[in-house]
Amino acid sequence: MIGLGDVYKVVATMFPLYVALVLGYGSVKWWRLFTPEQCDAINRFVAYFTLPLFIFEFTSHVDPFKMNYPFVAADAISKVIIVVVLAFWAKFSSKGSYCWSITGFSLSTLTNSLVVGVPIARGMYGQSAVDLVVQGSVIQAIVWLTILLLVLEIRRTQTDFYSSDETVGDSKAADNSVKDLEANSRAVAETKPSFWSLVKRVWQKLAMNPNSYACTVGITWALIANRWHFQMPAIMEDSILIMSRAGTGTAMFSMGLFMALQEKIVACGTSLTIFGMVLRFIAGPAAMAIGSIAVGLHGDVLRVAIIQAAVPQSITSFIFAKEYGLHADVLSTAVIFGMIVALPVMVGYYAILEFLH
Amino acid sequence: MIGLGDVYKVVATMFPLYVALVLGYGSVKWWRLFTPEQCDAINRFVAYFTLPLFIFEFTSHVDPFKMNYPFVAADAISKVIIVVVLAFWAKFSSKGSYCWSITGFSLSTLTNSLVVGVPIARGMYGQSAVDLVVQGSVIQAIVWLTILLLVLEIRRTQTDFYSSDETVGDSKAADNSVKDLEANSRAVAETKPSFWSLVKRVWQKLAMNPNSYACTVGITWALIANRWHFQMPAIMEDSILIMSRAGTGTAMFSMGLFMALQEKIVACGTSLTIFGMVLRFIAGPAAMAIGSIAVGLHGDVLRVAIIQAAVPQSITSFIFAKEYGLHADVLSTAVIFGMIVALPVMVGYYAILEFLH
Repeated sequence: MIGLGDVYKVVATMFPLYVALVLGYGSVKWWRLFTPEQCDAINRFVAYFTLPLFIFEFTSHVDPFKMNYPFVAADAISKVIIVVVLAFWAKFSSKGSYCWSITGFSLSTLTNSLVVGVPIARGMYGQSAVDLVVQGSVIQAIVWLTILLLVLEIRRTQTDFYSSDETVGDSKAADNSVKDLEANSRAVAETKPSFWSLVKRVWQKLAMNPNSYACTVGITWALIANRWHFQMPAIMEDSILIMSRAGTGTAMFSMGLFMALQEKIVACGTSLTIFGMVLRFIAGPAAMAIGSIAVGLHGDVLRVAIIQAAVPQSITSFIFAKEYGLHADVLSTAVIFGMIVALPVMVGYYAILEFLH
Repeated sequence: MIGLGDVYKVVATMFPLYVALVLGYGSVKWWRLFTPEQCDAINRFVAYFTLPLFIFEFTSHVDPFKMNYPFVAADAISKVIIVVVLAFWAKFSSKGSYCWSITGFSLSTLTNSLVVGVPIARGMYGQSAVDLVVQGSVIQAIVWLTILLLVLEIRRTQTDFYSSDETVGDSKAADNSVKDLEANSRAVAETKPSFWSLVKRVWQKLAMNPNSYACTVGITWALIANRWHFQMPAIMEDSILIMSRAGTGTAMFSMGLFMALQEKIVACGTSLTIFGMVLRFIAGPAAMAIGSIAVGLHGDVLRVAIIQAAVPQSITSFIFAKEYGLHADVLSTAVIFGMIVALPVMVGYYAILEFLH
């Protein structure tokens, strides 16, 4: 059984994150310190400075030659499982749709791994768990977010062709899915010659995104540094740390600002909220458990793998959703509501995972 | 002789501060990421959240029962020397003035001790030097900034009486000084009954100022914790650290924003700039050296005492100057230009102080 001490450990790990979150929320809702335009400035400060340097700091310390490959494989298998399930659903279910498959993928696989995942992992299982989380986050940033962007760009190209409006309501989902599928097959055929222009656009978007940029530069640095066995000079390390240390606090604060600026915490209706929570906190970890057991993970590595799949929704996935106009309200709710319920969810998973061997 | 290695040590200590400063400066001047109103938001974020928690974090770890009393005495003596010299100058010199004495005091004694002083002290002389700097900063915040506020409030009461406009130009300083002196003596006589309302106003201002507040709460916590020998629970410590870790980086970044928003780096003319630099980097450390030698400091404590007196200008002193309309341009120049020349000044002091025994 999980004891009170274990519950306290999880609470102590997550509480500081909520403090920063509530300060951000309160600064707008209660103390009216910032106008929406000013919130934008703080978000931009986080997005361009503290968060990229925070990401760089973590990824540059990965040893790409000593990744935990079974863990990476388990992660890949879990994602493939989800992609296959969603593809089947889109093709054969009457409610299935291409657009909802994209959002379903975001909801069930993309986590806020560095800001939220790292402190949780450190608090629960120590530094070796942090290394795993960072490896997972690098792969998420370089592989999965890139694929997501590519898919979103393809979809935008289609909708540009057919200028079919995105409809969120459940009742129209079925109609949409037919349209989506048609659009999809036709668009793929027609966009083939311009596939490279699409790739180029994704590439430009990634190169402009400070977070992708930071991750790519960080892992490149890690490759070079570990290949030729040299360390970052202390003066460079400290110059990054001066801003990157602000990463967790400012990122949570800015999420609090974001919460306060929404008209409602739950922006997309109850059923879609539940849909999002189920994908995030049950489907994602379940797929990860299958993948992990398939490659034979056990002990703390297995626990870390599963609990990391249950970390709240990635903020980047919301930003992409907003940019491409695809279910931004669902993603926003997943980020906000997910962060609110994360504490009991984490306590629950931590308790259940104690039974694993 | 100071070697290249020593110079590198000082550079390595200060370089990260400049990185954060230049990022702030560049984000406005070169990359145009923030409008002036948005800069205001970031400044407010720093002033209300990261900096107060940063100050609290440091002051709450002071042991008020184990202060280095000779160091504290040396600090007090140096301040008294400066006050006496400035008072004499105001009274007996033809160029002396009450207002310029206040500004002179700010320039020669008030330093940016926690944000700039702590990393310098740690880099040069290690953790025990940091403890000294923090002790000095607590006394600066509680004693000297309070006195400065009181003096500024008294002056405002006078100027309200006589509505004499503040004139910065050198040529009018002499006239002003006479007016000031008259005003001063009359005001003191007339405001005596309202002395307590003055004290009340200062008290309110301090209670509203997040930095004073943070310092007072921090030292109160330190008193209680050290008296009854208990420690801050890890969950509370971490909840403060999540924002306070951002302190140095965000404070330097926001100073960079401030620099970028000024029309010119040197806002007050060459002679006043030199005046400010001489007070800050020569008069202040000289007074501190006298005070230190008077109480018999030696070794690293003596070195720390002197070098800490040569740290760039306190930003709070500029904020007060602006609020009370007293030579804000001079203080702004002292903050900005002082930070720019701080690197060679620190290298110079570090080299000279190596000769001390």
